[in-house]
Amino acid sequence: MTPGVPLAEPQSLEDLATRFGGEVDEDARLRIVMRVVSPRDARDATDLVVVTNTRWVELARNVTGVLLCSERLASRLPKGLRWRHSHAEWALSELLLAFAARDGDTLPVRDAIVSPRAQVASDVAVGAGAVIQSGAVVGSGSRIGENAVVFGGVRIGQRVIVGPLAVIGRPGFGWVEGPDGRTSRMPQLGGVIVEDDAEIGALCTVDAGTLGPTRIGRGAKLDAHVHVGHNVEIGDGTLVAAQSGFAGSVRVGSSVLVGGQAGFKDHVHIGDGARVAAKSGVIGDVPARAVVAGFPAVSRMTWWRAMSKLLEASKKEPK
Amino acid sequence: MTPGVPLAEPQSLEDLATRFGGEVDEDARLRIVMRVVSPRDARDATDLVVVTNTRWVELARNVTGVLLCSERLASRLPKGLRWRHSHAEWALSELLLAFAARDGDTLPVRDAIVSPRAQVASDVAVGAGAVIQSGAVVGSGSRIGENAVVFGGVRIGQRVIVGPLAVIGRPGFGWVEGPDGRTSRMPQLGGVIVEDDAEIGALCTVDAGTLGPTRIGRGAKLDAHVHVGHNVEIGDGTLVAAQSGFAGSVRVGSSVLVGGQAGFKDHVHIGDGARVAAKSGVIGDVPARAVVAGFPAVSRMTWWRAMSKLLEASKKEPK
Amino acid sequence: MTPGVPLAEPQSLEDLATRFGGEVDEDARLRIVMRVVSPRDARDATDLVVVTNTRWVELARNVTGVLLCSERLASRLPKGLRWRHSHAEWALSELLLAFAARDGDTLPVRDAIVSPRAQVASDVAVGAGAVIQSGAVVGSGSRIGENAVVFGGVRIGQRVIVGPLAVIGRPGFGWVEGPDGRTSRMPQLGGVIVEDDAEIGALCTVDAGTLGPTRIGRGAKLDAHVHVGHNVEIGDGTLVAAQSGFAGSVRVGSSVLVGGQAGFKDHVHIGDGARVAAKSGVIGDVPARAVVAGFPAVSRMTWWRAMSKLLEASKKEPK
Repeated sequence: MTPGVPLAEPQSLEDLATRFGGEVDEDARLRIVMRVVSPRDARDATDLVVVTNTRWVELARNVTGVLLCSERLASRLPKGLRWRHSHAEWALSELLLAFAARDGDTLPVRDAIVSPRAQVASDVAVGAGAVIQSGAVVGSGSRIGENAVVFGGVRIGQRVIVGPLAVIGRPGFGWVEGPDGRTSRMPQLGGVIVEDDAEIGALCTVDAGTLGPTRIGRGAKLDAHVHVGHNVEIGDGTLVAAQSGFAGSVRVGSSVLVGGQAGFKDHVHIGDGARVAAKSGVIGDVPARAVVAGFPAVSRMTWWRAMSKLLEASKKEPK
Repeated sequence: MTPGVPLAEPQSLEDLATRFGGEVDEDARLRIVMRVVSPRDARDATDLVVVTNTRWVELARNVTGVLLCSERLASRLPKGLRWRHSHAEWALSELLLAFAARDGDTLPVRDAIVSPRAQVASDVAVGAGAVIQSGAVVGSGSRIGENAVVFGGVRIGQRVIVGPLAVIGRPGFGWVEGPDGRTSRMPQLGGVIVEDDAEIGALCTVDAGTLGPTRIGRGAKLDAHVHVGHNVEIGDGTLVAAQSGFAGSVRVGSSVLVGGQAGFKDHVHIGDGARVAAKSGVIGDVPARAVVAGFPAVSRMTWWRAMSKLLEASKKEPK
Repeated sequence: MTPGVPLAEPQSLEDLATRFGGEVDEDARLRIVMRVVSPRDARDATDLVVVTNTRWVELARNVTGVLLCSERLASRLPKGLRWRHSHAEWALSELLLAFAARDGDTLPVRDAIVSPRAQVASDVAVGAGAVIQSGAVVGSGSRIGENAVVFGGVRIGQRVIVGPLAVIGRPGFGWVEGPDGRTSRMPQLGGVIVEDDAEIGALCTVDAGTLGPTRIGRGAKLDAHVHVGHNVEIGDGTLVAAQSGFAGSVRVGSSVLVGGQAGFKDHVHIGDGARVAAKSGVIGDVPARAVVAGFPAVSRMTWWRAMSKLLEASKKEPK
């Protein structure tokens, strides 16, 4: 397997910059690129070498290809070979979408098990082995991944991506103790609403609400292995990294960033634009635009100072 | 999608209290309810509005429907509209099971792959895409979720629920180093026993034991994404929240509560009735009825004091 | 279900030691074993009782069977009954592989969905419900578990085990912000390489790289629920316990041990032979052969001292 992504046909750097923006060094304008690679795999003069991370600068100094770089790294790279861009990763993304050589079919649309009583728009791509139960609704342009399970009571909007092996709308984990001391399961009949353009990653669970729906907001994105409990609300445009979990009735505002392996106690509220660091354990409300970390989660600065001091003191001690 | 859960037919509050218990305010006895909602979705005089959480009290003060509330919140709610109950969530649960309007089929029982050498009771509901291997046993009244995998050597009791995409009885993660320094896999031939009335959530793994079985006790409940290593024992009636994990040979007593994202070192013992807080890292034995938190897990009070002090000190410091 | 693993036919201890090594007490040489059990399940004189953990020594003193024990535990066990072995678990493993009674078929090889444009070696066992997409390559002797999903662009070597419900090569979680402030998905076209003899556990995700491949090294083993982000490299022979996660572009050396529920920040490097304790949060590079723990992960000794001191201080305080 050759590393890097070949383009469907060669492109001049000048044409690329005209289409996607950014500034090309005078000498590089007529250079032709045929493949997109990271600095580690750069080999040919026709490589477009992507340099968007500080760790790659050193490697990139000796390549013969041209360099797609972010503005902040440009001054550390050889003049004459640079395509500088204020949003270099976005330019890379657009370029790959437009010109990367494609392999044809990738999603076998067959062998899914769709209830005749589910409402699935005609252009929905349903992966092999996926199950869509009676009463579920899936809007136009959406994709349901392989072996995913969509329960009844789930309403999925347009252009939504549900990853392989995700489980949407199962009855969640709610138990009640009766007057006789016995534990029984709380029915969860409120369903799930996934709004337009949202994405739910592979192997995620989004549980049904009890009376009203669990809600994933417009354009929100969940990475793999995320657990969303019953009656949770995830706001519009919020991003959640892998393996994080939300207990029942958590409300997360819009445009929130949640790192990996974070956990949220039931019923806490997270304000719009907040940032929750990876591995945080959030047990109280977080104000809008706050930046929190640690367990219990506090201001990231406070947590960081506390841990630094604690660990520094131990390093100094004699063994 | 209208929020809330409509009832199959209208019910008077008096009839409900006669059936499920609790006290109804004099003025509300003859009120008719047609839908069950949370305070946020209350709209009509025929709504039964559920108020079991402090956060909902404020919203509930202005509704026109009647209020199913727990005793401790009753005094903060308007007189005349209340159905007070010592176990309000249980009453809600029973009421929904008895009267919620149902949609018909929800579990397509077909397209599963069941070995002719598995013993599956005739009334077991096997979800689409589920795989039950040769030698597995599944008792009466149990349900196997969609796309779940049950290996040979697994013995599932009666009325057990296995969630979608759960994996029961795979050979677990045991590696041995030989005299030649090479690593090889330890065979895991002990199987799994899941006792009556237990529940294993979506996307869980319960690994086979090495010589004897891994055991999930009677009535124990695992939420989604839980990992149970080889030779673990989970006691009767124990509840485990999502994303927690148990390394090999952990023994958990009965009626233990485990919060989400907790982790357990191999071979530790957890006594009956213990409570392990979310995100705990348990690396030593926990006595019966102890309440632990943190990593390393210690008495919750000790952990809480330690973290409070540490973080308070940092808040006071100048930046 | 009888506990323990019966042998296909009786074996003398002398024969076993000749074949697998170790020293047998004089009196035990001619003893016959018919079943392998843990001390808890030992019952008969023909039991081979495995004693490889300190916790089992007490129980093992009263059994009538013979004892397969590690050298370090031998002196604490009754003389005359012992089969002492420098690698007792390895001997157990080999013995089970050679002599355990087997049940016949365990993997129904049918009903998988394999693209005609995938290259799958003729002896690959593909579990029921598994999906292998166009362009994927699977080498000789490998196994793909039930309901697993292998995307195009994935190249799997020889003798690789992919667990049930694993997802290999999905486009990972990369988002870019454009000049207009809108978030869009970064294409991930670099695929995945899984080298010979590696193992990827049940319910794992290994995401496709952006330009070059995500790589799982030769003989590396991932337990269940592990998340490997785009462009990560896991070195040869590295072992990763359940529920750990690696953000994008992490590089892990060879023969590294990673405990359960550990997390790794994007782009960090972990040196060869390092050991990362369970629940660590690794946010900086880790040198070769270092032993780290905690969050932020530091030398295990430092972390341990810091936490001990912190928690001890709290225990002493008056309530």
